[in-house]
Amino acid sequence: MELKAPKGTRDFLPQDMVKRQFVIDAARKVFERYGFEAMETPSFEDWDVLKAKGGEEVKNQIYYFKDKSERELGLRFDLTVGTARVVAENSDLPKPIKRYSIGKAWRYEEISKGRYREFVQADIDIIGIKEMSADAECIACIVDVLKELGLKDIKVRLNNRKTLSNFLKSIKLESKSEAILRALDKFDKIGEIGVEAELLKTIDMKAAEKIMDFTKGKVKLSDDEGLNELKELQKVLKMLNVDAKINIDYSLARGLGYYTGPVVEFMADAYKKSVAGGGRYDNLISVYGADLPATGLSIGIDRIVDVLDELNLFKVGKTNVQCFVAAVNKDVFEKAIEISQNIRKAGINCAIDLQLRSLSKNLEYCNSKGVPKMIIVGPKDLETNKVTIRNMQTGKEDKIEIKKIVDVLKR
Amino acid sequence: MELKAPKGTRDFLPQDMVKRQFVIDAARKVFERYGFEAMETPSFEDWDVLKAKGGEEVKNQIYYFKDKSERELGLRFDLTVGTARVVAENSDLPKPIKRYSIGKAWRYEEISKGRYREFVQADIDIIGIKEMSADAECIACIVDVLKELGLKDIKVRLNNRKTLSNFLKSIKLESKSEAILRALDKFDKIGEIGVEAELLKTIDMKAAEKIMDFTKGKVKLSDDEGLNELKELQKVLKMLNVDAKINIDYSLARGLGYYTGPVVEFMADAYKKSVAGGGRYDNLISVYGADLPATGLSIGIDRIVDVLDELNLFKVGKTNVQCFVAAVNKDVFEKAIEISQNIRKAGINCAIDLQLRSLSKNLEYCNSKGVPKMIIVGPKDLETNKVTIRNMQTGKEDKIEIKKIVDVLKR
Repeated sequence: MELKAPKGTRDFLPQDMVKRQFVIDAARKVFERYGFEAMETPSFEDWDVLKAKGGEEVKNQIYYFKDKSERELGLRFDLTVGTARVVAENSDLPKPIKRYSIGKAWRYEEISKGRYREFVQADIDIIGIKEMSADAECIACIVDVLKELGLKDIKVRLNNRKTLSNFLKSIKLESKSEAILRALDKFDKIGEIGVEAELLKTIDMKAAEKIMDFTKGKVKLSDDEGLNELKELQKVLKMLNVDAKINIDYSLARGLGYYTGPVVEFMADAYKKSVAGGGRYDNLISVYGADLPATGLSIGIDRIVDVLDELNLFKVGKTNVQCFVAAVNKDVFEKAIEISQNIRKAGINCAIDLQLRSLSKNLEYCNSKGVPKMIIVGPKDLETNKVTIRNMQTGKEDKIEIKKIVDVLKR
Repeated sequence: MELKAPKGTRDFLPQDMVKRQFVIDAARKVFERYGFEAMETPSFEDWDVLKAKGGEEVKNQIYYFKDKSERELGLRFDLTVGTARVVAENSDLPKPIKRYSIGKAWRYEEISKGRYREFVQADIDIIGIKEMSADAECIACIVDVLKELGLKDIKVRLNNRKTLSNFLKSIKLESKSEAILRALDKFDKIGEIGVEAELLKTIDMKAAEKIMDFTKGKVKLSDDEGLNELKELQKVLKMLNVDAKINIDYSLARGLGYYTGPVVEFMADAYKKSVAGGGRYDNLISVYGADLPATGLSIGIDRIVDVLDELNLFKVGKTNVQCFVAAVNKDVFEKAIEISQNIRKAGINCAIDLQLRSLSKNLEYCNSKGVPKMIIVGPKDLETNKVTIRNMQTGKEDKIEIKKIVDVLKR
């Protein structure tokens, strides 16, 4: 038996989890601040439901399986598919629906740095609003999440699928739009020359050049619905006082075929790749039988954790344990327990030596775990109702009265 | 295409999620208070890893599948298996390990009320401590979670697998212990007569009667290791000042075969079934190659949510949205946005009408969603820097100064 997480998946040890929880908690807090409400759907869906969004070919990119009754199922490949299904199914949900969802999704794909087969998405979606105010509010919310995480210099790249579609229509290439979208989506990875080469597989040189000109904003578009939408969107973003640099970027494609309006990507700090993204998908939910406009954005939690790590932006410690209580011998164990229970009651995260180990063992343990404070309970100190508190970082020890422990720890 | 969650799984709409999040947040808070640290493992494991704990026959009770490379995998059937694997794999983790995990698990089994194929467990485990103080601390922690949730009259039922084993050895029935355990585990479901009938399938009447006497505490056990452990456990529980009625109950078996010491179940209020449980499993991790004593308890989040619902104990509202801002017309939309952004900055969850709907539409929306407060922004009020605040429960409306909105909402 091989002792490891299945290929493409990862274990998260306590010090990893402190970081992940920090990111997830921040996302959730800001999502709720903006009036988004949690919704959850199962981790797997009927294959028909997945296929309706992802197409037959998605079967090769997901964990597809049958249950014991030969039902065809698949682990969800994103959080949107379940949301679209549940929204269509519960037609009596008051509109608009502003929902968030933070959960795992799975894709069976090639593994590379930052790309895992099991990953966590944090999504917000507004369903039932066709106005650009919804897209704007989603953007403002994501910018606030990124700021909450400590990211700076946030850039929002905007484009509109309608604009690209109209342009392709004007040069009679709408039939090739899927391949063109896929090529444009690789801009970040393969650069301008790469994209052009990719385009030449589908269209001729002249057409490819036109498209490249378009992505650079060199094509004059007059009275374009997509551009009008983006103008409206930018107007609301300004009202929302969004703290980010917002630019229209005609090269922004985003891979997925189902976007119908504004598409968005977020950059931050010096990080070269997108940290969040999404867009409007007015036709997706109708696949499940309800004709509802929708727009949404998604943060990849794994990516963001990697980014914050890389940029050294995490301000969290190695553990959420705030103090460790150690009894010097078994005669004072009961007192040590009483002290730790009082610390806990005061809302402080507290562990206790349950095995009466030696002081040196306990010091080593707290050091290796990164516990910031240790309370040493000894019979001599107890005679004067005191304990020793040790700052694990400096090694400094103080005698403090038992009744002052909580105050000192809260400082 | 059928529009529903796969059989045995459920969708959670916003008002369900408020309850679930309340329970999960409470569990996490108390777990961390006790110095437990989060750990996470993947949702699926290699089949070999699952089989090592669950046995070959578990294949019929889980979601088993192969990935595109013919790797045999299965959705985890509990959170212990991944933890045992990861602890054995990472032998350098400082001991003891006090970890918690709150996550989904899946079982392919018959569905009944309160039994789902996708469910959420909240587990705490202490790994690396053989002393009863670890078992006691886990119990104290779970009792505090239950209290935090508003449950009262908490009862802790204790038994020890060692005691049962020793007794079965003394009457020469140790070879039948698995079948006997399974029969005893049905006590809550089928009652005394049912259990006796079940026992008679495996053993004779005289032996069955002896066992029934044992479960009633009628058998005198002298110098029993299991009982000594329970005495020690109760001693530490007393030190921990656990707010629950703690009783030894010889009929408590718990189904799983891998328990090696104390087993525990929690009851609360008038609810007839167990709301949490677990026990010591000193030999499980050695299956994965590391010889580590361990003890742990588990709360079924779905069960607890059902219980709190049934006992009418939830104190949460239908939504986490605390107020809804509505502009009376488009001229004051910008001001309404500004107001909502300020409310959000103050840490209050706030939604805004993004579509400039009519007042009656907005009232209806807030009513149906259970939003407690509405802020109506109109041009007339704005002339004196005021808005109208409406208490959605009473219908009472007040004019308040814009700069006082946050104070009023925080009241």
